[in-house]
Amino acid sequence: MDSAAFDALEHQARAQLPPSSFAFCAAGADDEITAAENSARWRALRLRPHILRAVAQVDTGVMILGRHAATPIMIAPTGRHRLFHCDGEIATARGAAAAAAIFVMATNATATIEEVAAARGDAAQWFQLYLSDRSVAEGLIDRVAAAGFTTLVVTADMPVYGSSPRAAREPLIASEAIRNVNLPGAPIARNAYDGTFSGTVTYPITQRDLEWLVRRSPIDVVVKGVLRGDNAKRCVEAGAKAVIVSNHGGRHLDTTVTTAEALPEIVEAVAGNAEVYVDGGIRRGTDILKALALGARAVLVGRPVMWGLAVRGADGVRDVLEHLRGELMRTMALCGVAKLTEATADLVATDSLRQ
Amino acid sequence: MDSAAFDALEHQARAQLPPSSFAFCAAGADDEITAAENSARWRALRLRPHILRAVAQVDTGVMILGRHAATPIMIAPTGRHRLFHCDGEIATARGAAAAAAIFVMATNATATIEEVAAARGDAAQWFQLYLSDRSVAEGLIDRVAAAGFTTLVVTADMPVYGSSPRAAREPLIASEAIRNVNLPGAPIARNAYDGTFSGTVTYPITQRDLEWLVRRSPIDVVVKGVLRGDNAKRCVEAGAKAVIVSNHGGRHLDTTVTTAEALPEIVEAVAGNAEVYVDGGIRRGTDILKALALGARAVLVGRPVMWGLAVRGADGVRDVLEHLRGELMRTMALCGVAKLTEATADLVATDSLRQ
Amino acid sequence: MDSAAFDALEHQARAQLPPSSFAFCAAGADDEITAAENSARWRALRLRPHILRAVAQVDTGVMILGRHAATPIMIAPTGRHRLFHCDGEIATARGAAAAAAIFVMATNATATIEEVAAARGDAAQWFQLYLSDRSVAEGLIDRVAAAGFTTLVVTADMPVYGSSPRAAREPLIASEAIRNVNLPGAPIARNAYDGTFSGTVTYPITQRDLEWLVRRSPIDVVVKGVLRGDNAKRCVEAGAKAVIVSNHGGRHLDTTVTTAEALPEIVEAVAGNAEVYVDGGIRRGTDILKALALGARAVLVGRPVMWGLAVRGADGVRDVLEHLRGELMRTMALCGVAKLTEATADLVATDSLRQ
Amino acid sequence: MDSAAFDALEHQARAQLPPSSFAFCAAGADDEITAAENSARWRALRLRPHILRAVAQVDTGVMILGRHAATPIMIAPTGRHRLFHCDGEIATARGAAAAAAIFVMATNATATIEEVAAARGDAAQWFQLYLSDRSVAEGLIDRVAAAGFTTLVVTADMPVYGSSPRAAREPLIASEAIRNVNLPGAPIARNAYDGTFSGTVTYPITQRDLEWLVRRSPIDVVVKGVLRGDNAKRCVEAGAKAVIVSNHGGRHLDTTVTTAEALPEIVEAVAGNAEVYVDGGIRRGTDILKALALGARAVLVGRPVMWGLAVRGADGVRDVLEHLRGELMRTMALCGVAKLTEATADLVATDSLRQ
Repeated sequence: MDSAAFDALEHQARAQLPPSSFAFCAAGADDEITAAENSARWRALRLRPHILRAVAQVDTGVMILGRHAATPIMIAPTGRHRLFHCDGEIATARGAAAAAAIFVMATNATATIEEVAAARGDAAQWFQLYLSDRSVAEGLIDRVAAAGFTTLVVTADMPVYGSSPRAAREPLIASEAIRNVNLPGAPIARNAYDGTFSGTVTYPITQRDLEWLVRRSPIDVVVKGVLRGDNAKRCVEAGAKAVIVSNHGGRHLDTTVTTAEALPEIVEAVAGNAEVYVDGGIRRGTDILKALALGARAVLVGRPVMWGLAVRGADGVRDVLEHLRGELMRTMALCGVAKLTEATADLVATDSLRQ
Repeated sequence: MDSAAFDALEHQARAQLPPSSFAFCAAGADDEITAAENSARWRALRLRPHILRAVAQVDTGVMILGRHAATPIMIAPTGRHRLFHCDGEIATARGAAAAAAIFVMATNATATIEEVAAARGDAAQWFQLYLSDRSVAEGLIDRVAAAGFTTLVVTADMPVYGSSPRAAREPLIASEAIRNVNLPGAPIARNAYDGTFSGTVTYPITQRDLEWLVRRSPIDVVVKGVLRGDNAKRCVEAGAKAVIVSNHGGRHLDTTVTTAEALPEIVEAVAGNAEVYVDGGIRRGTDILKALALGARAVLVGRPVMWGLAVRGADGVRDVLEHLRGELMRTMALCGVAKLTEATADLVATDSLRQ
Repeated sequence: MDSAAFDALEHQARAQLPPSSFAFCAAGADDEITAAENSARWRALRLRPHILRAVAQVDTGVMILGRHAATPIMIAPTGRHRLFHCDGEIATARGAAAAAAIFVMATNATATIEEVAAARGDAAQWFQLYLSDRSVAEGLIDRVAAAGFTTLVVTADMPVYGSSPRAAREPLIASEAIRNVNLPGAPIARNAYDGTFSGTVTYPITQRDLEWLVRRSPIDVVVKGVLRGDNAKRCVEAGAKAVIVSNHGGRHLDTTVTTAEALPEIVEAVAGNAEVYVDGGIRRGTDILKALALGARAVLVGRPVMWGLAVRGADGVRDVLEHLRGELMRTMALCGVAKLTEATADLVATDSLRQ
Repeated sequence: MDSAAFDALEHQARAQLPPSSFAFCAAGADDEITAAENSARWRALRLRPHILRAVAQVDTGVMILGRHAATPIMIAPTGRHRLFHCDGEIATARGAAAAAAIFVMATNATATIEEVAAARGDAAQWFQLYLSDRSVAEGLIDRVAAAGFTTLVVTADMPVYGSSPRAAREPLIASEAIRNVNLPGAPIARNAYDGTFSGTVTYPITQRDLEWLVRRSPIDVVVKGVLRGDNAKRCVEAGAKAVIVSNHGGRHLDTTVTTAEALPEIVEAVAGNAEVYVDGGIRRGTDILKALALGARAVLVGRPVMWGLAVRGADGVRDVLEHLRGELMRTMALCGVAKLTEATADLVATDSLRQ
């Protein structure tokens, strides 16, 4: 794939998929301002490449929660992969394994935890959790820990569903194919969005809930959906090992700060007491190196992986991950960065941090 | 209504209304820069949502001038509602009552004060006044107070009419339907705009006039049309209980500061000695929460209510108000804000306050 | 004329004029960035209107170089008015007289100094001079002083011609109609632009030249074409009574600062020791009040006057001036400004001064 | 040529050339953001022209590395000129000689070093080097020194090739015409871009390599591709006589800082201990004067020279250089700058340095 690969891939995915599946993947809240801006902000950051450094070989290896990873690129948790490919999350897991990348499996999956685990190969797998009913959560936690998932990612930024005109125009058709097979009692939701909101919060997560989760979980807990330094500190105080700077891809609340804007504040607030990852609009190797330079340990990629899954299944997933890693390596070389620990904040022009 | 509802509603209103009525509603002064920018500035503010807060239920209740209101969303005063629906302001009042929202009736109304009062239900009603001839004003004040209106909103930012090319292209046709029935002697103006201006000011309001009004009025006085901190202070000194940050929807003077830009300066100047409301370009629940976070106690909405009125009468008015309140609730939940008093300025990214 | 008048007028002028005449008027240097930006910058300044001020009547009167003027709007010097109307500068002078506005006649005129003087009525007239050959200049100075012109405007920002692709595409046809009748020996230039530049400066003006001019001239000297505070100071030191902040309408050097951007620096540097006027992109009453608020004593308008001249001769000139004055009055009323001396810098939002 | 000349010239070159040749010239990395932004940033800088200065004649002469040059405009090193004209670099050298401009010949040339030297006339010639195999480099260095080239320009910003979708869509056809005739053993690369990157750096240049080169080279060494002040200092410490602020025309790494943005930082860091030149997006005389005002001693122009070469061979090259020099002279006159040493930083508005 050349550097225009993702545009072409998205195009192909759109052509192949039922409109409702594509819309489910593409949808952002309301006017999709944040969904679009996430990407634009990474692109707007300006690199200050180094020359004259001794870079003969570049290495994308990174330590993530105490384990070595070959790449700082993870697959972001997204729901219902059978919307995109008949093998669903199993294909995604295979693609991740082929690229030696961490796959964060979503609660709202169309393959079982055990099926996904079996496709793991040598790559680590993480599990994303919506915390609502504690006993349901406990069942899932024990099950994923038993299946060898190493980290629990709790989503904290979706207490209620947002509203998406795009998704509303192309509603999913309820079918067995998109049933959440890990929560057998759950209804088949036609949509990730609600038209109405009564005022009662569906998934409230408090700091106490998080503290409980950390105590209860046999594996590391990471909090996803942090956009403020003060909130990141509270996550660390509650025992989270890492936070994911995320606005949920702009899917539920529109006009938030972008993740590129929020990242530096959170890195500063956490002050090395936890790892920081970031997702939202990452589409290029340059985006990734900018994120790492600003203090992220790793990045997560969502929609492009779904495009790859839709077009070529496990191979497509692998290609997307390897393409991004290739771009990251090229960017590292062109910036005089041999190892990711050398990616420091001065690689990004200060002026471009503010619009 | 989903979150694209207002675009569709405006479209429908435009299709149904005579062009001159739609133009009367849509018109802004000169190049309509401010009319467009009001909305764009709210949209450009970036939210910094909280997570991990104990939000199980959200409540939009608010104290407005000593009375509890179920919603911080009021209907802004706009003229001649019979341009939009045969029941005119009576339908608007019914819709407001159904949504438990405050309706600010305009002097330039096509239903009588008493007819509107009769449609009030349990909702409070306010009355907007142009202060010119004091004896005419006294007549109106006593009449609205007697009819149970609780607050007088004096418009201070329209000493003369502006000029609108859009309105000039589609002049209103003078007819009984758009007569100001509360000022029987008044001529039927064909337009809210003048082509020529002689230099003599039509509605000059001085601080002394305001002081007189406060003394004379048996009900609370609120000043509408404030864009400067120093002016807001003078309103408070003259006895106003609240000020409305407004540029008259950009209808008379073009290229003013937007209300989103002016709000923080005015909140700071007033320093808690009066309530502050804001109008101009509010189209989303996110806009509303941003306004409240920046110190507004409530917001006023004008044009969208007219679209609702045009398309479905009282029910359309109610739907617009409830749709906005629904979006506000969803935004509160997604921002970790259970009560409106928790909406503090740190919810809005400082950088986004400046363009 | 309503507030869209100038767009319509320009359209009509373009339709009526030979393309080369319209191009001569419209042309800017190179990419016409500055020509366009002048206007955009005035428009981008944000007003902070006052309310509650005692404004019953607005008055556009202003003292200009010791004489009272009914309006702060002057006609900027532009060349060859017979390109636009058969009566040329005579019609322009009549229109200015009808609007009681100062007409700055250009050296490069197609009517004689005496013909223009005869059309003066009660309005003051100024004369614009390119200073090259001192003896030629002396002849012109004595002649305009004898004819009752009260002020000499020396253009300092056009040492050489710029280059305009637009003008090059539509060259003027050399004809008697566009002969400079006040310099009988001068060749009929086909264009205000050169294709080539040899390195030798055509109209170099030094501070010494300016000092000589001030000594030699029996009437006040004003310097046109100042964009820097330090330069403005030098003009005052040389004896200029006023400076005109101008980039020559963007006609010769592209990508300069706009006049709206340069104005505050120059007002500050001059520190009241001379009057400051400004031209370039003034198209609205709001533009004018912004300029006066930022310290200009008066504004000059060029291209719109030519549109009026082209379409309706002297009456068109008058209409343009009166339309702008009408917009200024309306803006004053809406901003709580009764007299122009009340237009202070706080009327313009500080943030909008910087892009 | 008038001031729209380059747009027309590019158009003509595109019409005449095989698409792959035009694409090779136009290509930028990835989304071509930097390639486009380089130009836009020069254009966005705002000039603050002087008046009243004694400028009767303007002179573009400048001292470059101890030798007088008639013009501060050099031809940037670009590869494979036979893609554009059958005489290749020989025609380019002739055009440069005719305009008395320095031609920086690229290693990747389609004419021999000696052929180019023979076309030199009275103009100086420099040679661009990719430093990889030291013995190959030594051969080239001795050969160019013997041929009378006075300066060695070592490219430091292309350790690996970038990726260009544009170039990938229009690959060059391998042919003898585009063989690098100065490195007989080299394969005929079809492209300046790679589709894949293995992680191994092709042209790593360390500070030690640079120190070796400075010691080894009998002629002055200049480093091309500097975007950071700290890097520029290291170049000077290693013995470079000058640095070229460059992002390689945006051809290999996208979303870097533009050269206009990087220039002031580098001028400050170098602090007069070396000369600073700049390339990237220079298309106008105003661009050049801005660069010189910000501290560059000279500028380099790449793509427009290739357009001239394609359309009219040596004459086209000369015309491009003379056109730019003519624009520079005109800009100097209009800015009150008689000699280039008078072009100081205050000619550029500080606000426009930041976007």
